[in-house]
Amino acid sequence: MNAVNHMHSNSPMYGNIRLYAGSACPELANSIAKHLDLTLCERDIVTYPNDNIFIKLNSSVRGQDCYVIQTTSIPVHRNLMELLILIQTLRLDSAARITAVVPYLCYTRSDKKDQPRVPITARLVADMIEVAGADRYVTFDLHADQIQGFFSIPGDVLYAYHVVIPHLEEMVRKMHRPVIVSPDLGFAKKARNYAARLDLPLSFIEKRRLSNAPTAKALTLIGEVRNHDCIVIDEEISTGRTIAAAVNLIKEQGARDIYVVFIHPILPPGSVDMLLDLPVKQFITTDTIPISLEDKAKFGDRLKIISLAELLAEVICRGNQGRSVGELFNE
Amino acid sequence: MNAVNHMHSNSPMYGNIRLYAGSACPELANSIAKHLDLTLCERDIVTYPNDNIFIKLNSSVRGQDCYVIQTTSIPVHRNLMELLILIQTLRLDSAARITAVVPYLCYTRSDKKDQPRVPITARLVADMIEVAGADRYVTFDLHADQIQGFFSIPGDVLYAYHVVIPHLEEMVRKMHRPVIVSPDLGFAKKARNYAARLDLPLSFIEKRRLSNAPTAKALTLIGEVRNHDCIVIDEEISTGRTIAAAVNLIKEQGARDIYVVFIHPILPPGSVDMLLDLPVKQFITTDTIPISLEDKAKFGDRLKIISLAELLAEVICRGNQGRSVGELFNE
Amino acid sequence: MNAVNHMHSNSPMYGNIRLYAGSACPELANSIAKHLDLTLCERDIVTYPNDNIFIKLNSSVRGQDCYVIQTTSIPVHRNLMELLILIQTLRLDSAARITAVVPYLCYTRSDKKDQPRVPITARLVADMIEVAGADRYVTFDLHADQIQGFFSIPGDVLYAYHVVIPHLEEMVRKMHRPVIVSPDLGFAKKARNYAARLDLPLSFIEKRRLSNAPTAKALTLIGEVRNHDCIVIDEEISTGRTIAAAVNLIKEQGARDIYVVFIHPILPPGSVDMLLDLPVKQFITTDTIPISLEDKAKFGDRLKIISLAELLAEVICRGNQGRSVGELFNE
Amino acid sequence: MNAVNHMHSNSPMYGNIRLYAGSACPELANSIAKHLDLTLCERDIVTYPNDNIFIKLNSSVRGQDCYVIQTTSIPVHRNLMELLILIQTLRLDSAARITAVVPYLCYTRSDKKDQPRVPITARLVADMIEVAGADRYVTFDLHADQIQGFFSIPGDVLYAYHVVIPHLEEMVRKMHRPVIVSPDLGFAKKARNYAARLDLPLSFIEKRRLSNAPTAKALTLIGEVRNHDCIVIDEEISTGRTIAAAVNLIKEQGARDIYVVFIHPILPPGSVDMLLDLPVKQFITTDTIPISLEDKAKFGDRLKIISLAELLAEVICRGNQGRSVGELFNE
Amino acid sequence: MNAVNHMHSNSPMYGNIRLYAGSACPELANSIAKHLDLTLCERDIVTYPNDNIFIKLNSSVRGQDCYVIQTTSIPVHRNLMELLILIQTLRLDSAARITAVVPYLCYTRSDKKDQPRVPITARLVADMIEVAGADRYVTFDLHADQIQGFFSIPGDVLYAYHVVIPHLEEMVRKMHRPVIVSPDLGFAKKARNYAARLDLPLSFIEKRRLSNAPTAKALTLIGEVRNHDCIVIDEEISTGRTIAAAVNLIKEQGARDIYVVFIHPILPPGSVDMLLDLPVKQFITTDTIPISLEDKAKFGDRLKIISLAELLAEVICRGNQGRSVGELFNE
Amino acid sequence: MNAVNHMHSNSPMYGNIRLYAGSACPELANSIAKHLDLTLCERDIVTYPNDNIFIKLNSSVRGQDCYVIQTTSIPVHRNLMELLILIQTLRLDSAARITAVVPYLCYTRSDKKDQPRVPITARLVADMIEVAGADRYVTFDLHADQIQGFFSIPGDVLYAYHVVIPHLEEMVRKMHRPVIVSPDLGFAKKARNYAARLDLPLSFIEKRRLSNAPTAKALTLIGEVRNHDCIVIDEEISTGRTIAAAVNLIKEQGARDIYVVFIHPILPPGSVDMLLDLPVKQFITTDTIPISLEDKAKFGDRLKIISLAELLAEVICRGNQGRSVGELFNE
Repeated sequence: MNAVNHMHSNSPMYGNIRLYAGSACPELANSIAKHLDLTLCERDIVTYPNDNIFIKLNSSVRGQDCYVIQTTSIPVHRNLMELLILIQTLRLDSAARITAVVPYLCYTRSDKKDQPRVPITARLVADMIEVAGADRYVTFDLHADQIQGFFSIPGDVLYAYHVVIPHLEEMVRKMHRPVIVSPDLGFAKKARNYAARLDLPLSFIEKRRLSNAPTAKALTLIGEVRNHDCIVIDEEISTGRTIAAAVNLIKEQGARDIYVVFIHPILPPGSVDMLLDLPVKQFITTDTIPISLEDKAKFGDRLKIISLAELLAEVICRGNQGRSVGELFNE
Repeated sequence: MNAVNHMHSNSPMYGNIRLYAGSACPELANSIAKHLDLTLCERDIVTYPNDNIFIKLNSSVRGQDCYVIQTTSIPVHRNLMELLILIQTLRLDSAARITAVVPYLCYTRSDKKDQPRVPITARLVADMIEVAGADRYVTFDLHADQIQGFFSIPGDVLYAYHVVIPHLEEMVRKMHRPVIVSPDLGFAKKARNYAARLDLPLSFIEKRRLSNAPTAKALTLIGEVRNHDCIVIDEEISTGRTIAAAVNLIKEQGARDIYVVFIHPILPPGSVDMLLDLPVKQFITTDTIPISLEDKAKFGDRLKIISLAELLAEVICRGNQGRSVGELFNE
Repeated sequence: MNAVNHMHSNSPMYGNIRLYAGSACPELANSIAKHLDLTLCERDIVTYPNDNIFIKLNSSVRGQDCYVIQTTSIPVHRNLMELLILIQTLRLDSAARITAVVPYLCYTRSDKKDQPRVPITARLVADMIEVAGADRYVTFDLHADQIQGFFSIPGDVLYAYHVVIPHLEEMVRKMHRPVIVSPDLGFAKKARNYAARLDLPLSFIEKRRLSNAPTAKALTLIGEVRNHDCIVIDEEISTGRTIAAAVNLIKEQGARDIYVVFIHPILPPGSVDMLLDLPVKQFITTDTIPISLEDKAKFGDRLKIISLAELLAEVICRGNQGRSVGELFNE
Repeated sequence: MNAVNHMHSNSPMYGNIRLYAGSACPELANSIAKHLDLTLCERDIVTYPNDNIFIKLNSSVRGQDCYVIQTTSIPVHRNLMELLILIQTLRLDSAARITAVVPYLCYTRSDKKDQPRVPITARLVADMIEVAGADRYVTFDLHADQIQGFFSIPGDVLYAYHVVIPHLEEMVRKMHRPVIVSPDLGFAKKARNYAARLDLPLSFIEKRRLSNAPTAKALTLIGEVRNHDCIVIDEEISTGRTIAAAVNLIKEQGARDIYVVFIHPILPPGSVDMLLDLPVKQFITTDTIPISLEDKAKFGDRLKIISLAELLAEVICRGNQGRSVGELFNE
Repeated sequence: MNAVNHMHSNSPMYGNIRLYAGSACPELANSIAKHLDLTLCERDIVTYPNDNIFIKLNSSVRGQDCYVIQTTSIPVHRNLMELLILIQTLRLDSAARITAVVPYLCYTRSDKKDQPRVPITARLVADMIEVAGADRYVTFDLHADQIQGFFSIPGDVLYAYHVVIPHLEEMVRKMHRPVIVSPDLGFAKKARNYAARLDLPLSFIEKRRLSNAPTAKALTLIGEVRNHDCIVIDEEISTGRTIAAAVNLIKEQGARDIYVVFIHPILPPGSVDMLLDLPVKQFITTDTIPISLEDKAKFGDRLKIISLAELLAEVICRGNQGRSVGELFNE
Repeated sequence: MNAVNHMHSNSPMYGNIRLYAGSACPELANSIAKHLDLTLCERDIVTYPNDNIFIKLNSSVRGQDCYVIQTTSIPVHRNLMELLILIQTLRLDSAARITAVVPYLCYTRSDKKDQPRVPITARLVADMIEVAGADRYVTFDLHADQIQGFFSIPGDVLYAYHVVIPHLEEMVRKMHRPVIVSPDLGFAKKARNYAARLDLPLSFIEKRRLSNAPTAKALTLIGEVRNHDCIVIDEEISTGRTIAAAVNLIKEQGARDIYVVFIHPILPPGSVDMLLDLPVKQFITTDTIPISLEDKAKFGDRLKIISLAELLAEVICRGNQGRSVGELFNE
């Protein structure tokens, strides 16, 4: 990746870069700004006693190229609304262009009607971002790449893969007969990409619902893990139950050391303790969602967080200058 | 008002009435259903550990005339999202028509740019309701009637006035030289309507910001209150500070008994205790927002809640049958 | 306010400023052009015998930043149509950006359904301006600030306040116990702003409809005017009846000298004579709407017109260069 | 054509027919209503001194199938605005469906950019009708049939041809070697249709601009008229200059009796006197635009007005009942 | 499934069912009509020498509930355009509602940007169907269920699964240690559903690209097939190369009898001969795409086609009557 | 016309010109590129066995001013889809602006409902181009200029007239009593423009349908051709039947040499042989549609093709730089 700070000029077409952050991921936003040699633009975000949010920009964005950095982690709806209000405020202040930078996009698991009479909330979220006034969006690792098609505005869907792979390559060198394990058939294709790039074999865990009760499931391992070091890879850890079941199953089946990689550390209350009880040597994740200091302390050395700030800074810079993002990844 | 339960037939044009409720105001929703001699349609609303909401309708709404009853009180953003997801779910299930019934619509105080670089969040909320797929909306006492113009879909903006006035007429008969007091210039015209209908004089409180600090304000009473029983009328009680200041001011100026009428009982934590400390004989409000049992207990007899359920039932019924709503109010 | 004519360069982003004027306010348009050191672009506006308007631009606007200056005064519908046709013509000629500069926007009093079965014509007008192809709008003192939310394009709603206040400050210095009078509750909040800025007391006139006949109304003065010089402030003078009633009432109540300030001088036929008969020392207004030479002659010294041309020029210049408009007003 | 008054039932799908009329063509509107055995719905149309129009419906249209009958003759812009406000008012009152019935649609001659930097105002008018909220439109003899494609809503573009032809058939029987003359190449194809149906020969008049001055034109007759009775057919008479030139030319070329047929009697001030001076035996037109009593008196027997009311009534009835309009004309 | 022909009444809300078919799948369309006891509505479809298609409906659809049955098989673009023109024609003829019934939807494999600078053509196709004027759509087995979210109109995405499973259940009873094989990781989840329902084990084939050349791939079998009868299941057979590779691999690995199930029989020229050479006992498919008589003859008994006509008829009937489709599948 | 290659700088506003070509008119596209001193951008266009098209751009267009050159000749639907996919791909790759350059736009003859229950496919095509994401369009000689109004995006509709006239002027000098003949009333006005510019007389051919059978027509010549050299001018040659009938008729009527000018050489299979059999001295056309080498060989010297490449290059250049296109033609 080229160094971002070599950028000296702003785009004549889209105006200067103006970075705004909601209140969801201040650390990541500041880190992006630092990589761009900029500071976050000041804005007031107030919550009234009636729970309504009020926002005021402290300076004009007329004719500027604005980026709103806001992840939609817990509390999801408040964070989402902050994102939308910020976008509308920028639009009403005659910004030249507005890009929503949402490292973790909420509701992407609600992306289809796989049963009658359910919503496709990811489409609703896309519609809300567009109706607020975003011209483009940037995000990481959607639950399904098809969600790109829910937007009618263009966007850059990035993959933590590009930043995570170098770390895994190093790890793998020290491992014993390493193998990639996909804990869920839905993640099978992405897991295959990791396996192919690392030149490792691939195993799956197949889950079948035993009855209508959502918790009663039978797991089957398809492929080999006995006497292998295993890297279990998933998109996100929410409750942690999927990962826990996978780890326990492969441990029973004779896996040696187990590593768990996940892109979006949702980690709701209670999940961290459960993860720490698992026979997992190390957890590797990113900063698409901030992890509390308390949780970080609990994990200690067992957690490795890989920052995506530099990559986001580079993508913002290229977006502003009208340069290719794909070539960053030799694509 | 005609009795709602005289309705025997559904509209051939819009299909049968199907009532859905979010989780914000179950009591009001049930009461509306009872007035219509219907039951609320069953649906599951689940909150996942990652804070995402999942909804499933338990029966088909294909070709039916659907009403989503959901107030957008605290927690505002979660309640709003429930409303939107419900609307989208109904739309994707091929409902014939969807009406959002939102007794209290959030963010209506953010209805204009009265300073640069601020949002018009009420327009954003209107856009979100439309993009989710609502065909119509029903609500009560918007902060400004102009907010109707933020929607491009038609709607019925009702006034609690019609239900509250009969109660006030009775109250006024027992009062001593009653006068209406508007605690805020923004509410002046609506207060005038109450005063005109009750044939009472009107006084105002004018607030001036003394400096940039939002709390330093000077209040002036314009009009007479000394030796009058006073009815202070406002749209909503949020922090309660506006009402408290008004009540204290008129008390100082010699008001006798004070009654406080407010349509939307937002009542965030802490506000109730403050209200109870005020020299107010009775508070009169409605059920556009549910009040907790605990708060109700605290208020005891000092709080009178006037239900809007019957009026909403009537409006839903007329909407379904294609009959006039305006004639309900002799308009 | 900074001097506009210090501007030397056009925006690389939006192209050069191109000023077009309809036929409604040629004097104001020329004055704006002069302040920008530009000339109005030539265009033909022809009215055919069938009453249809035909417009042809005399030079290309491809890739330019175009401003259409057209007020929507009487004849309202013809002026509005000219505005819309001009906007569409510019759009079809591939203008880079089109801003509708409408000093007085028609139909803003039709901004809500305050009774059933009436239009919200201000929203219709906003929709028409957008569908014609405007990217932004600039206007003055809307009847209600909420009308901003009727547009989905961004705009700059300016207040004559900023230009009028310096004149009032000077006037007030020579007045005897001056007081601000709001002739209508709907204008109460704006009148308060004038009063607060000038540090004067405020009085209101409350109007109540006595019966269904629209002319039978009872007026009540709330506040003090006896032995005060009075400044009556309103948004516009249309028939002049509201102002006349207010002036007569406060005169009866003992007001001394009376001054009348109004932003939009609609002044339909007949109104000027009525105004001149009132016990008003001076009328102060602006040039959002042109006043005929004949009417100007009738008013003589009793009318003071404050021009908004320089402010509009500054706003256009800042819009083109992507600089803040709000900071013009220390906001 | 089937008799309209045999209709006994309204559509269950679209509700009952509700007829509204603007103020442009009250006679035609009443005649349509009579044919449908209905009365026009009451509404107030008020013009304020500031030239703004205010409309109020006197009864609810909730769930009804509404038709707005309004021609857009002189004063064009006021009549157009009345149409748009009526449509919006019906929409905001939750009408089930709204059809704009505009016998003469204004601005259809501005239907293309035949030179650079001119508008396509007919598209603008179509957009305005749609944005106001019309679901369908009905009109007569557009200047170009392609204007149908300017609308994205469906419509019925009717041809006076079907009502006029029977009259012409009768006339032709008494004429000497009759021939159809098209006074303008733009009308050539429609004139051909008349000629083909009446089985008559066809002649054209070709107009060439001699210089840039719009009035200097050379006319050439292509085809035969000498010793023929001639029927000159055109879409509309606006100034009457085209017709006058054509009539004079064919008279010079030896035409015998001359009849002039035109669909839309725009007839601006001055045109009638000019027409009466022409060597024309009879003028035949329709009531898409009302003709003043004074003008009718001037024309006397030389003017024959064929009413389209019955056809419009039939089309409205079939639209409401979901029956074919095309089969009315054996199509 | 309930019998469709028990339907006696049409919906008062949406009008009568009108079935239209393009030219792509006449047999299926006729079969659907028969199940509904209706006939296809007549329309002319003409191809001009300039390759443009012209369509004319032979009777009016005003106010009717129209269904356009057209699959988008080869020639894809012509078939797609026929679908779109039919939809627009119905819309312009004032149809009450239009449902696009597209058994096989083209371009669903282009559903995401999995590399930079590629289209999401499935979204484009969805947009085209919407802009033509469809109100709803019905289709079968999309490549990814997320494509539902590309539409903003509601639709019924059906699964051939429900019709195919009974056939497989019968087949499986006679098989030796049957196992389900998914030839592609992308189909893994759907294959799991078949396996779970049939209570069979599941194996996968993992494909890795060996170099940049798209044909050089390494296949790995994950799971067991030796000495099992195998059912290979995929969504569609296009070139047949994926299936061929899968069949050959499992044959090498010791599979016994092999059956191949695929929903959409695209079968471009050349593919049938290749399939017939494979060691496959039987091919099972549906009629979402018509198979030529010649190809049917070649396959002979080795091909079993399961018709979806009855299910489509039932879905159309329920759509018209506003009854649940989901309950057809006990959902 | 100014020389295009004098352009040295790209627009700061719209980015650099990027030329893309579909596969329909590679020669014209290359010629345009050469005139602009550019090369066509590389892209892969692949047709899969299932007839789906896949496109990949070989370099990024982020922030660039993109032009897609693709004519929509036979195979019309495939070429149209290529155009649409290219546009969407550019849009999703964040192009700054996209212009569809379509020398021959398909379906323009389907531009109105001249009978009930037919489509307006030209509007559908315009909608498809817009929904794909084009910001502007450039095309030549639409069947009706009104089709401009089908687009809501701006465009440049050019006339081959400007390039063809100089050739005709030269030709005419050597002709004997030349006359222009319009073979169709629909083309009458355009033929008049040619005649006026060349200062020649004009004749028409009138076609009447004799019965309902589309082939039985009676032709009448209106005007003079005997002993004149004739230039027959039409928009396009599709089957060639219209031209053949016209040529034969005027030959019968005594025309001397006959020349045929047509803008769009559609020339479907079979048409060329028919044309060559006609008593036509020379055919003159343009390169809006490529003519096969084989057909060119057949025509030999009897065909003159006038290239529009230089004009298109100039128009693209001016579009990019924001300079007038109209002034190219002294308009």
